[in-house]
Amino acid sequence: MASHKVTLCVDGERLWSRLMEMAHIGATPNGGCNRQALTDADLAARRLFINWSQAAGCSVRVDSIGNMFVRRAGCDSTLPVVLTGSHLDTQPTGGKFDGIYGVLAGLEVIEALNAQAVATRHPIEVGVWCNEEGCRFPAAMMGSAVWSGRMSLPAAHALADPDGVTVRDELQRAHMPIDAPLVRQAVKAAFEAHIEQGPVLERQAKTIGIVTGVQHMSRYEVIVEGQEAHAGTTPMNERRDPVRALAGILPELYRVADGQRPDARLTIGVINATPGSPNTVPGRLRFTVDVRHPNDEQYRLFRQAVQQVVADVLAQCALSGQIRCVWEAPAVRFDEGCVEAIRRAAAMLGYPTLEMVSGAGHDSVNISYAAPTAMLFVPCAGGLSHNEAEMALPEHVAQGADVLFHAVLARAGAER
Amino acid sequence: MASHKVTLCVDGERLWSRLMEMAHIGATPNGGCNRQALTDADLAARRLFINWSQAAGCSVRVDSIGNMFVRRAGCDSTLPVVLTGSHLDTQPTGGKFDGIYGVLAGLEVIEALNAQAVATRHPIEVGVWCNEEGCRFPAAMMGSAVWSGRMSLPAAHALADPDGVTVRDELQRAHMPIDAPLVRQAVKAAFEAHIEQGPVLERQAKTIGIVTGVQHMSRYEVIVEGQEAHAGTTPMNERRDPVRALAGILPELYRVADGQRPDARLTIGVINATPGSPNTVPGRLRFTVDVRHPNDEQYRLFRQAVQQVVADVLAQCALSGQIRCVWEAPAVRFDEGCVEAIRRAAAMLGYPTLEMVSGAGHDSVNISYAAPTAMLFVPCAGGLSHNEAEMALPEHVAQGADVLFHAVLARAGAER
Repeated sequence: MASHKVTLCVDGERLWSRLMEMAHIGATPNGGCNRQALTDADLAARRLFINWSQAAGCSVRVDSIGNMFVRRAGCDSTLPVVLTGSHLDTQPTGGKFDGIYGVLAGLEVIEALNAQAVATRHPIEVGVWCNEEGCRFPAAMMGSAVWSGRMSLPAAHALADPDGVTVRDELQRAHMPIDAPLVRQAVKAAFEAHIEQGPVLERQAKTIGIVTGVQHMSRYEVIVEGQEAHAGTTPMNERRDPVRALAGILPELYRVADGQRPDARLTIGVINATPGSPNTVPGRLRFTVDVRHPNDEQYRLFRQAVQQVVADVLAQCALSGQIRCVWEAPAVRFDEGCVEAIRRAAAMLGYPTLEMVSGAGHDSVNISYAAPTAMLFVPCAGGLSHNEAEMALPEHVAQGADVLFHAVLARAGAER
Repeated sequence: MASHKVTLCVDGERLWSRLMEMAHIGATPNGGCNRQALTDADLAARRLFINWSQAAGCSVRVDSIGNMFVRRAGCDSTLPVVLTGSHLDTQPTGGKFDGIYGVLAGLEVIEALNAQAVATRHPIEVGVWCNEEGCRFPAAMMGSAVWSGRMSLPAAHALADPDGVTVRDELQRAHMPIDAPLVRQAVKAAFEAHIEQGPVLERQAKTIGIVTGVQHMSRYEVIVEGQEAHAGTTPMNERRDPVRALAGILPELYRVADGQRPDARLTIGVINATPGSPNTVPGRLRFTVDVRHPNDEQYRLFRQAVQQVVADVLAQCALSGQIRCVWEAPAVRFDEGCVEAIRRAAAMLGYPTLEMVSGAGHDSVNISYAAPTAMLFVPCAGGLSHNEAEMALPEHVAQGADVLFHAVLARAGAER
């Protein structure tokens, strides 16, 4: 491949310094961010973003579920917008790039258009989607789900955090227009830039991931019922010990996942033994199994095998319990026209690319139900994300924003 | 064996009705008790017990670690006391018999002596040991440990509950004499009646367990360090997943324990994955392993094998971590004279007995370091304990108290 230098259209240094400034809000001792949805930190991040956006000449609108849209006018204000953006909220021990990168890259596209005095036919909007992470209020990608019509506004408003504070309470506290009708603007094309949150681009030395879709995913909750008993006095063969079922289930689950390498993903993120006393046989065990696969048929077989393992081991141990699917998101295929816009922009700029399926869910999954959508990824160090050590290189951050610039511009239509 | 009827010396009905009255204090919805050490419920139970004791003509003394001694005078007040008793505190989801049975059986011995106008040469004391359970303040058998000199008073005073409230704070709140010097009374013999907390007596249809000692026990904490990573984007072979180590460790631990049947006991009561998010590979896993065995050599081999399993699997998984013994109680052999007193009392009364080693720790372990000590057990339904469904039969409860009566009387010396 011919090597050629391209001058960036975006200001990589400004983008980086804004990322670092934003990272001060909700900063954690280990260098990450705790900026959970609709907390004071999230609201502070929104204010900072609004300041920057208004300084860039944009108008700002907030909807009744707390999504924020920063708009650069087009030559024809009646045309559908080209939408980009992501989210400002983080996991409790999140990093400096997940979400916020896509938001600031979107603003950087507008800044670059301003700097070059480029007018576009279509308006451009940067969307900040409320509660993408779903850790404080238990519904990931909430704001984009409501916007796209996949979740009802009252259901989202009613979501409560562990202290019983609802989304509605917090939106009201922040003076957001909770009772306004939710009107979805017409969207010509939607793009989201994001760190990969996995190690593939870095390992393959690619700069831009052209994301053609998102894999299948589901989350199971497994409950095993045992019987509390004294650790010292109850002979092993008289126990109903749910951890013994776990001892049978875990190796089999990993065996199933390993049998579908390299695409299967299986994660046991939560394990709780109740009552959780060192000298009491647990009366109850609860754990989660997150199951993902990009391929329709293999995903079906994978899920089936996971459920069978749990049922078989419970039967072997003569323990009651259940495995229950508590969440599922079928695979999504992004819009070929939007994917092609990213593909062309990256090719024009000469960056090494990889076409890939996202392993994680994103707001773009919801957006894709309402508008033509695609995503681009940039590498992150070691594939680490949802981690305070999350890191991306300044050049990748800038190059990803530059690809986004050209993709957005191609769809918005320059009228110089 | 000849069947013969014996009239009980104790009042089984009074004892049972007191057990049931005491169970109202800290009663849980499922029929158990939550009367953790030095809570309002524990203090209320102490007041009720003091009322009964004073009505029975006893004096009451509280020491600087919150142990309470109810005394029936002997003919010679300078002689060492015969001590009996147990504890009033419970697990968070404890039952109606664990501990409280031994306390009320002790008072019943005194009531029976009163009823029969029997004077004894030695004074008799019923001890109520503070914080036996060790669930609120993290040191089981705390009061008896301080009394016996196995734990320092300042160390016990400094123990804090999860809210940061210390034992000292709570003793002060209850107006106990925290600054008084701790004087250990001379003890001629000590007896503790307790429910078995295991299924052996019931299964073998025995009424009285003659407890000759307590098995070896130790508690391990295992930490496995992994790396937090996104559940959807991180290929299985690029994860440092501590749950995969658990999948290797658990079956091996049970294999080791099963290989030492029937005496080995292995319990995994606590398992925590951090951060505990369904879509994040845990960065850290912590679990406890409680290991017990009555036999010296087999216990040594058992512990060795447990530690080896953890080390081997960590090495196989290339994960760092550690297994650490956080608590150990070597086996105890009770005083043969005291054991013989229980054996003779039970034989005289004609109850079916079983000589056994306790699987659980008890205050008597500590007491045995300072005085000749033994225990007796009565059956509990299904061996259930540390459980709201804990249950014992009224006749067993009465018969155990009657054995205790004769053992105590034998040592205290009747002077009618």
